[in-house]
Amino acid sequence: ESSSGRLFLHPTSHLIHHDCLRDGPAQARLARGKVERLPAFTVEVVGHFARPLCPEHLHSLLRPGDVVVIELPQRMNGGRTCRWETLMEIRRLTAESGARLHMDGARLFEAKPFYGRDVREICALFDSVYISWYKGFGGMAGALLAASDSLISLAADWRSRLGGGLFTFTPQWLDAREQLRCHLGSFTQRFLRLQELVEAMTAEPALSLFLRFEPPAPESCLIHVYLKGSEDMLQAAHDGVLNALGLKLWNRLRGVGYPASFCDDDEEAQSEAGECYFEFNMGPANAQIPISTFLEGW
Amino acid sequence: ESSSGRLFLHPTSHLIHHDCLRDGPAQARLARGKVERLPAFTVEVVGHFARPLCPEHLHSLLRPGDVVVIELPQRMNGGRTCRWETLMEIRRLTAESGARLHMDGARLFEAKPFYGRDVREICALFDSVYISWYKGFGGMAGALLAASDSLISLAADWRSRLGGGLFTFTPQWLDAREQLRCHLGSFTQRFLRLQELVEAMTAEPALSLFLRFEPPAPESCLIHVYLKGSEDMLQAAHDGVLNALGLKLWNRLRGVGYPASFCDDDEEAQSEAGECYFEFNMGPANAQIPISTFLEGW
Repeated sequence: ESSSGRLFLHPTSHLIHHDCLRDGPAQARLARGKVERLPAFTVEVVGHFARPLCPEHLHSLLRPGDVVVIELPQRMNGGRTCRWETLMEIRRLTAESGARLHMDGARLFEAKPFYGRDVREICALFDSVYISWYKGFGGMAGALLAASDSLISLAADWRSRLGGGLFTFTPQWLDAREQLRCHLGSFTQRFLRLQELVEAMTAEPALSLFLRFEPPAPESCLIHVYLKGSEDMLQAAHDGVLNALGLKLWNRLRGVGYPASFCDDDEEAQSEAGECYFEFNMGPANAQIPISTFLEGW
Repeated sequence: ESSSGRLFLHPTSHLIHHDCLRDGPAQARLARGKVERLPAFTVEVVGHFARPLCPEHLHSLLRPGDVVVIELPQRMNGGRTCRWETLMEIRRLTAESGARLHMDGARLFEAKPFYGRDVREICALFDSVYISWYKGFGGMAGALLAASDSLISLAADWRSRLGGGLFTFTPQWLDAREQLRCHLGSFTQRFLRLQELVEAMTAEPALSLFLRFEPPAPESCLIHVYLKGSEDMLQAAHDGVLNALGLKLWNRLRGVGYPASFCDDDEEAQSEAGECYFEFNMGPANAQIPISTFLEGW
């Protein structure tokens, strides 16, 4: 809404990693170049890749018209999620400085059990909130923006101007309503299930030799799993398990992961040597699989 | 694809009138202000509102990296369409100067009968072509971009970056295939039907006292109809006909229309005093109505 304000983004933000399915350090470098070409915004990247945004990162930086974006949870570093006290402190900082606070809450419902609070209470800390229908809800496509009337109207204008408007979103809307009806109540159970799975796998001494979780304990219904070995070797082992037991351990290895120091100036920084990661979502289907089956596969 | 090039747009272009359903001189002024905020493009508006783009408008202006956009047909001035010779001359000018030629062919199939040529032959004059599925094809939403692999790839990146990507376009794609199957062969018949209707209405002396067409003869399956009178008075007459005969003469009056001099610097220019216009599309449903029924309504 303000043409003079700056946009404060965490290095994990999807506004940087808009095509985040191409992973690895090469993608990180590419994304950093491209974010400078986002129209009409001055982008400031703040914070460290491995941790959620902290109030200290913003201290004495904010001015009226600025916008702080918090991705909740942060997909690119394993679903990490700001603590409630952190959110309240960032809300206080933005309000005092005349800045605004936007939630990229594509997976907000997957982070809700981490807080144990109603989504209304979480959203009330933000000036605007974005929620996706095709992540944890499993919808076909589309998203929801909740904001003031004036911001919604401006966003609609810009969506049209930038080529994002469709003549109708009826199929997406019908599908989103149905997914909301089916899945709204399932997120707490999924989060508990992921906690249980991570605890069980971490407790296995044989597994801990080659497998670790980022973050070490889930902060949402999504987590990253790092494995020791080259992509070829790991994929061969995966195919062996699939043939022997009919169990598929992951959909896709995503490469070596982002360097933890991505936000710093050292572009050559690498993630831990000799590791690859995959993303694990505790969706409705995974939540039906007994923990013993996961352990058998591994 | 070039970051240094300029974008040459006709004053009727949908890239200017992106929210073209808010009509009238106020909208024209608004649109002119907003086009300056399109990201990453330097926009040059060339040509006159009431006429299609002419080669003279571009002469000695073009440089390598520039892009000329031709809307075919031009909705905002009543579906006017460049002559074939004009297209060929503009193609020659752009090729010689190293510029590129893009067709905003949202309604290309509605202009095809005007040329009496295959769409392949028309499209072959352009470097890239955009076609809409929800205009003459009557689809739900969505569009098609035909271009080189490198431009398609760049467009896909930017669609994602600017917020226009959906996780899937499957419903739109299925619907577009079905509309293509149903309507591909109907455009010539629709164009002939609109010519017939315009001739019949123009030949009625009583009608010519208060009604005129822009352009005077159809150049596509779409035309603008201008009526003498104020919006209130015309709407009252419309409702009278609807009550008496059950015939609906238009869906919506769109206001006084754009000033013919919109491309010039005189922002206060007005369209003809005391007129309002509506848009008439010869779609599949209108094409089923006998000419005598139209004349009875009027």
